[in-house]
Amino acid sequence: MLYFENDYTEGACSAVLEALIRTNGEKLAPYGDDAYSLSAKEKIREICAAPEAEVYFLTGGTQTNKTVIAGMLQSYEGVIAAQTGHINCHEAGAIELSGHKVLALPHRDGKLDAGEVERFLGTFWGDEAHEHMVFPGMVYISHPTEYGTLYTKAELEALSAVCRANNIPLFLDGARIGYGVMTPESDVSLVDIAALCDVFYIGGTKVGALCGEAVVFPRNNAPKHFKTMIKQNGAMLAKSRLVGVQFDALFTDNVYFRIAENAITKACRLRKILAEKNYRFFIDSPTNQIFVILSDEKLAELRKNVVISFWEKLDERHTVVRFATSWATTDEDVDELEKLL
Amino acid sequence: MLYFENDYTEGACSAVLEALIRTNGEKLAPYGDDAYSLSAKEKIREICAAPEAEVYFLTGGTQTNKTVIAGMLQSYEGVIAAQTGHINCHEAGAIELSGHKVLALPHRDGKLDAGEVERFLGTFWGDEAHEHMVFPGMVYISHPTEYGTLYTKAELEALSAVCRANNIPLFLDGARIGYGVMTPESDVSLVDIAALCDVFYIGGTKVGALCGEAVVFPRNNAPKHFKTMIKQNGAMLAKSRLVGVQFDALFTDNVYFRIAENAITKACRLRKILAEKNYRFFIDSPTNQIFVILSDEKLAELRKNVVISFWEKLDERHTVVRFATSWATTDEDVDELEKLL
Amino acid sequence: MLYFENDYTEGACSAVLEALIRTNGEKLAPYGDDAYSLSAKEKIREICAAPEAEVYFLTGGTQTNKTVIAGMLQSYEGVIAAQTGHINCHEAGAIELSGHKVLALPHRDGKLDAGEVERFLGTFWGDEAHEHMVFPGMVYISHPTEYGTLYTKAELEALSAVCRANNIPLFLDGARIGYGVMTPESDVSLVDIAALCDVFYIGGTKVGALCGEAVVFPRNNAPKHFKTMIKQNGAMLAKSRLVGVQFDALFTDNVYFRIAENAITKACRLRKILAEKNYRFFIDSPTNQIFVILSDEKLAELRKNVVISFWEKLDERHTVVRFATSWATTDEDVDELEKLL
Amino acid sequence: MLYFENDYTEGACSAVLEALIRTNGEKLAPYGDDAYSLSAKEKIREICAAPEAEVYFLTGGTQTNKTVIAGMLQSYEGVIAAQTGHINCHEAGAIELSGHKVLALPHRDGKLDAGEVERFLGTFWGDEAHEHMVFPGMVYISHPTEYGTLYTKAELEALSAVCRANNIPLFLDGARIGYGVMTPESDVSLVDIAALCDVFYIGGTKVGALCGEAVVFPRNNAPKHFKTMIKQNGAMLAKSRLVGVQFDALFTDNVYFRIAENAITKACRLRKILAEKNYRFFIDSPTNQIFVILSDEKLAELRKNVVISFWEKLDERHTVVRFATSWATTDEDVDELEKLL
Repeated sequence: MLYFENDYTEGACSAVLEALIRTNGEKLAPYGDDAYSLSAKEKIREICAAPEAEVYFLTGGTQTNKTVIAGMLQSYEGVIAAQTGHINCHEAGAIELSGHKVLALPHRDGKLDAGEVERFLGTFWGDEAHEHMVFPGMVYISHPTEYGTLYTKAELEALSAVCRANNIPLFLDGARIGYGVMTPESDVSLVDIAALCDVFYIGGTKVGALCGEAVVFPRNNAPKHFKTMIKQNGAMLAKSRLVGVQFDALFTDNVYFRIAENAITKACRLRKILAEKNYRFFIDSPTNQIFVILSDEKLAELRKNVVISFWEKLDERHTVVRFATSWATTDEDVDELEKLL
Repeated sequence: MLYFENDYTEGACSAVLEALIRTNGEKLAPYGDDAYSLSAKEKIREICAAPEAEVYFLTGGTQTNKTVIAGMLQSYEGVIAAQTGHINCHEAGAIELSGHKVLALPHRDGKLDAGEVERFLGTFWGDEAHEHMVFPGMVYISHPTEYGTLYTKAELEALSAVCRANNIPLFLDGARIGYGVMTPESDVSLVDIAALCDVFYIGGTKVGALCGEAVVFPRNNAPKHFKTMIKQNGAMLAKSRLVGVQFDALFTDNVYFRIAENAITKACRLRKILAEKNYRFFIDSPTNQIFVILSDEKLAELRKNVVISFWEKLDERHTVVRFATSWATTDEDVDELEKLL
Repeated sequence: MLYFENDYTEGACSAVLEALIRTNGEKLAPYGDDAYSLSAKEKIREICAAPEAEVYFLTGGTQTNKTVIAGMLQSYEGVIAAQTGHINCHEAGAIELSGHKVLALPHRDGKLDAGEVERFLGTFWGDEAHEHMVFPGMVYISHPTEYGTLYTKAELEALSAVCRANNIPLFLDGARIGYGVMTPESDVSLVDIAALCDVFYIGGTKVGALCGEAVVFPRNNAPKHFKTMIKQNGAMLAKSRLVGVQFDALFTDNVYFRIAENAITKACRLRKILAEKNYRFFIDSPTNQIFVILSDEKLAELRKNVVISFWEKLDERHTVVRFATSWATTDEDVDELEKLL
Repeated sequence: MLYFENDYTEGACSAVLEALIRTNGEKLAPYGDDAYSLSAKEKIREICAAPEAEVYFLTGGTQTNKTVIAGMLQSYEGVIAAQTGHINCHEAGAIELSGHKVLALPHRDGKLDAGEVERFLGTFWGDEAHEHMVFPGMVYISHPTEYGTLYTKAELEALSAVCRANNIPLFLDGARIGYGVMTPESDVSLVDIAALCDVFYIGGTKVGALCGEAVVFPRNNAPKHFKTMIKQNGAMLAKSRLVGVQFDALFTDNVYFRIAENAITKACRLRKILAEKNYRFFIDSPTNQIFVILSDEKLAELRKNVVISFWEKLDERHTVVRFATSWATTDEDVDELEKLL
């Protein structure tokens, strides 16, 4: 069986696994004070060119989004997101459970448009009844988006400018940020993100770790007592080494970037194969997720040998599916798939 | 100055005020056990032909929506509402503060369409990832809607059928329900509403009371310990007589319906005048709220003598405004306004 | 039947009722902007000698406690209160529903001791694990307390000093504050309270109004957008005049203080009668609530003619009961009761 | 340096680490559907003699307590716990953040007494004002307790009987349950716990895993859609294999019990040494945590070579400290410590 279902099918990439093995017997401080967490934070500060950054490690994406958003919003504020944003669709209402509305705006290829955000903010502040409405208190974007698309640097700058003009933070969900920065078409680096966003996270779970996300407040701007917020959100591990060791390994010798690059290389090959074979793309996504329209017969046939993700029904006879590559995808996997397509 | 701004500009209608005066010296039990609350509940049961109904009195609309919705939903559930629903737009995120998402669907003249709701529910239950999504746990509608429009009995039956087929309650926000049932074009009575909905409230604040809303669970189907939920939501008055006496007066000698009828009669006259003078209507609303498009010059001129509500800008030179009549509107008010139009 | 059950048995005191009647037909702005609310706020600022004060009107005690406490605390903070505090015992968990822990400390006659609070704060900040604990973010006291007792000015100064030294606000629940300031033994005035507390409320419901509590932030120190917090807590009345008119009447011609004085005068007479007849007092409370120990036979006998409140069982044959006087208690009521005792 | 600080200083025990290495390359389903999670659940059902049990894996203790408690309580309910319970003291208010009060009762050696719980429940239901109070909706105990003490089977049966008579669930926090069941003095097995409790969790983090807790609903009695509750509490791992593989290894060949037994054996040796050397015990705890009173000089001296936990100041010259053993403690560690004591 071939696996192109998602980017969290395997365990840890080899560097991460080796680090866990190597450090297993060490006696380390708990609750975020272990030496590997401290070391990993320093490495992340360097890679982001953000020497003032505060970095916190959590274990998963929904947990991270919830803790960051609830931690930064006032009770009367909500978070602006694309209609297709992960927090709006696939987190089981975690944000609302924490008391805050997701203010959903239309998307373009999964992205929020700075002009749209600006108009929304202008309308809100111009409305005489705005005291009876949810205040927009943050902008949330994902990069890559849920459709595998990427913001350009100009788009990110525009969003950042709108946020700063309105004095609200810009939060970037980087669950797959590694794939984003390693995409050749992209002109956005981690340094850009640290400069333009007020908080973001570097995803581990989907980029080679067993679990773990690194939240970065790039300008020493974490909410007061954020550590206690992590605790009360159930997001603090006693053995914080588990995430600390993994991120320390990921940011040693460019492991994070090298494994992300592998996924991108394989995705490019696969995209080319699909194009040559005249498959129809559902959306033009340059990262490690490829959305393709298949006839239902073709889908049934493929599924005998390949695991891929159902995305949505297009019409009565066609289905949108997702092929995802990862740090673990090999050229042999792509060769095999090519034969089947 | 003439007032057509809203339906809560004056104090109480005369029957309510007189009842408050008459009963003021009586020594009554607190927290919902006063004799007038008990009497008013009985009258509401009769008027709704719902002898099993449980009735609770709260003080305002947002509070009522929040307490009812939070009281009936499970933590993993959200409430379906029209994009334009009051809970989605103008309650400052009260529903989300209680932990629940408003699942906003497109509206038609402020109304939810049963077919749209059915499709949404079908898609949700058909989605393999629905365990990662907010479960639809209730349908919320307002009648009259925020645009003054009304559901037909057939539309209400269709919504009720969809809810029952999916085993979720139908909640009707009746902040202006009196105006709804007294509109000649409407074929929906309180008895119909009690039969088709699982919970609804009869608004007092906007129909002649100083404050107060009566929540009705028509088939003895209130959530367990709903009284304690009211308390913990800060919605319980020590002097529950304040609302009990008012509702008892409103439902004695058809006061509620007679004062609502006055608003409708005056609105009909006004609508006719506006039509004759070729004003453009923004929406066709048969109740006590009339939405009209004015040129900005006309608006400025009118405002010298009349208080009306700004609704929204239509374009650079035109504005949508609302004229509202109420139990207190007189023929003289309409005469005066006619001269100014 | 004689009524000494509580201080919210009747409707409104006459000045309040007359004001409601007199203003009923006036057309007033909604949501807190009516002229009477504005006037009442100004009168409260004067009476408190707090020209910078921000004043907000809500409808009941639990609602007010919840909105104020949730509005002033950070998510990781709790509120210190006496074990017997109303928020800890009789508000159905409203504070916890808003996400915050009540940090209960031992009481002395219903009061918090400044030394006890100081020790608690010292221990918290000295604990190495305090990041895993609830941060103390506010001190809540009631004056009079739930036992009818009063803080001395010295005690209030000590609590205020501890709070300021620790940079946390002092919140005084004044549901019965009128009775407190009119007790001859008390050396604490509204001006003192405004000077020593960071937020407090002046209770209307239990001192002559139909409903309503006035929250005072004495030094222009309300949380940002507190009005929207009121809205999202379901605590905002469309017809804000209802509370505005009442408070305007209460603070005109010293009505509030005169009616409170009546309750105190009657309570003093009753206390004297009880002492002369050798009844045992459960606690020494100088305000309008008197806690007496009765044999169960005496209680059964009295209850044939008098409504009083059960407080708690003392032992198998004795019960603690509460006699409460109010603005409505007459000398004839006390005469009658004297005969029965 | 010697480490007796806690039981989460090292990484994973060898069987767990080996299982993670062995399975790392396997391609497994996410979100709880991986083969190892399924296998581990089956093993837990067998070991608990609870073939109907529903088992869920979460990552840490606070998260588990919060998700279980919030998932099982109604909004108007709180959870009864000992004053010293972990949820009451050291979880940063996580339970309150979810909207529920911890109803703290006095403890005896860290334990709740069934009689005390019964009296509390009786008083609550007997109070006429109980509709204004927090309903007791669950009993929470920890076993071993925060003081390392254990319930006897008789005590657990008594608590279970009180809960069942009052129709509320009994929840056992088993963060260190392995050490509890392997203590020779204990007559309580996992089978007993499954029979007497309504929900409990088997701790992994403190008993040899890198992270992970297994929640067991022994009689197919999980709240509906508990998986979605896990998701919305941010407690679901995409790579659920991480916890599944670990628990599968822990419950293969009795690894869990063998490593727990090691901690108990070492603790017994250490307790004997301390007794022989006339150290004073703060509390009589039979499990892997030993609480000892040291003079401050002795403490300073010891800390040069041993890491132990500060517990609390006893008086001006003495301190209570905790020595903890774990699956990783060796006889050589105890030998070394003996020399230093």
